[in-house]
Amino acid sequence: MFANTPEPPYYAVIFSSLMSNDTDGYENMAELMVALASEQGGFLGIESAREELGITVSYWQDLASIKQWKAHAKHRIAQKYGREKWYSDFKVRIAKVEKDYAL
Amino acid sequence: MFANTPEPPYYAVIFSSLMSNDTDGYENMAELMVALASEQGGFLGIESAREELGITVSYWQDLASIKQWKAHAKHRIAQKYGREKWYSDFKVRIAKVEKDYAL
Repeated sequence: MFANTPEPPYYAVIFSSLMSNDTDGYENMAELMVALASEQGGFLGIESAREELGITVSYWQDLASIKQWKAHAKHRIAQKYGREKWYSDFKVRIAKVEKDYAL
Repeated sequence: MFANTPEPPYYAVIFSSLMSNDTDGYENMAELMVALASEQGGFLGIESAREELGITVSYWQDLASIKQWKAHAKHRIAQKYGREKWYSDFKVRIAKVEKDYAL
């Protein structure tokens, strides 16, 4: 359930979003993108939750792997739909995880 | 709705959790802690969502403000309840936000 990340340092992409009213096709694309991201080099894991606000945090080995995933052709199509159709707003924050601990 | 964070760099505390079956008192304490955190030096904002997995990301000016909040007496009581009662599992990741962008 939690992303099974290695010892820090590694990177987090914190994606916060609000859905528009036009969510047709969103669920399928979201599933597809999680599956595709999981196959990318440097992918470490993903965690996601939504109430009104949605938060998805994906974890990556380094900035290069984040950049490659952002530029992936299929992911670019999903991003375009996201910007133009599915999301009324979003914010992306790229952060270097320096420390972690658990229960 | 989104945390109104300044230009990076700043810090994120990514708190991922699973609730136990014993959530008595949790909602009140969670509200209290959000209110109290908001009053602390260096606090920049907070975003939260829960399905089965809960993700709360709080944003802070620097590591010192995160450390002070972790050590706050009332927050320590909440942390103790969290560890012993409310959460069946959690993971905390402390990360330096290097870059952000929006829709």
